[in-house]
Amino acid sequence: MTFEETCERVAQFTTDRDWDQFHSPENLAKSIAIEAGELLECFQWSPDAEDEHLREELADVMNYCIQLAQRKGYDICEIINEKIDKNEKKYPVEKSKGNNIKYDKL
Amino acid sequence: MTFEETCERVAQFTTDRDWDQFHSPENLAKSIAIEAGELLECFQWSPDAEDEHLREELADVMNYCIQLAQRKGYDICEIINEKIDKNEKKYPVEKSKGNNIKYDKL
Amino acid sequence: MTFEETCERVAQFTTDRDWDQFHSPENLAKSIAIEAGELLECFQWSPDAEDEHLREELADVMNYCIQLAQRKGYDICEIINEKIDKNEKKYPVEKSKGNNIKYDKL
Amino acid sequence: MTFEETCERVAQFTTDRDWDQFHSPENLAKSIAIEAGELLECFQWSPDAEDEHLREELADVMNYCIQLAQRKGYDICEIINEKIDKNEKKYPVEKSKGNNIKYDKL
Repeated sequence: MTFEETCERVAQFTTDRDWDQFHSPENLAKSIAIEAGELLECFQWSPDAEDEHLREELADVMNYCIQLAQRKGYDICEIINEKIDKNEKKYPVEKSKGNNIKYDKL
Repeated sequence: MTFEETCERVAQFTTDRDWDQFHSPENLAKSIAIEAGELLECFQWSPDAEDEHLREELADVMNYCIQLAQRKGYDICEIINEKIDKNEKKYPVEKSKGNNIKYDKL
Repeated sequence: MTFEETCERVAQFTTDRDWDQFHSPENLAKSIAIEAGELLECFQWSPDAEDEHLREELADVMNYCIQLAQRKGYDICEIINEKIDKNEKKYPVEKSKGNNIKYDKL
Repeated sequence: MTFEETCERVAQFTTDRDWDQFHSPENLAKSIAIEAGELLECFQWSPDAEDEHLREELADVMNYCIQLAQRKGYDICEIINEKIDKNEKKYPVEKSKGNNIKYDKL
């Protein structure tokens, strides 16, 4: 399945259940943070995560991200590429190579 | 740009800066939670978020999600579709339509 | 300053600025998650955090926790002790000593 | 029980189970973020949270905050008061009263 078809399936799942009424942008942002916490729980006591659990939790985060983009009418590829454009200016290769210094201290 | 090309650009950005050394799965999971917090901050005191800021923060969350999938060798569409398969069983349309009751209380 | 006096100062800070109108329980819960993300950022790329920054971010999380307890009329010591009572049953010493297995797998 | 006694009980719970080996500052910071996500889940689809659940989740966040302070040797009242000192300068009453504008835009 392509990414576009996957996104359509994400939307259809919500429509079929009449869940759009609950999925305000704010509630979706909360849901992303909640699922990000569950993803992090895979690594709570160890740097190694159990694979099946990790796949599910990562999917949950992405699923809600797709829904927030859809709800706001954002093109996912566009917003990611716009942000990479900005990051390329904030973190020029010659300054950032091999270090993890934050842009405001570069 | 297609989603596949976008994902390649995400990977290239990290490789160009020699940042793979910092991007362990655990550090990426922390980064997703951190960025999810920044996304939520767009809605801290109000259900309405400023658009430009929201686009950027959502892109940051997705960017790290893509990187975690790449690092673990996960196919993004596959893990999302697998999770929807599970959710369809957990939330059958006839039981879940129009309510937001959690699956373990349905 | 005692903990009780500190909590009074937390409440006074909000009252002085007429901020109670923004501090609904939901907004405070969002704020706790946002600040928890900033606290985690101290450890984003390394297990060692810079001390001054860490002190501030931990204080921010606790400050909002105190406010949520005040808003809901919870006694902080009471809710913590009630939860420890439950945790003692979920994690009996003889089963949990020296391992970090979750209670539902003990 | 006083706050000091409550904090001692929090420490004793961990010592009794020999869990200090798992409770590095980084793991505690992750745990705070994870529990903050669970607290937020009480408000995922509604501004109203179920009381018993909310009490528990707030206690979990505070419990790990206390442990992080103990692990780092921080005096909890001291770090909170230091932060309020800073916040009083960032948000002077005459500028902040009745609005929720962030300090860098005041």
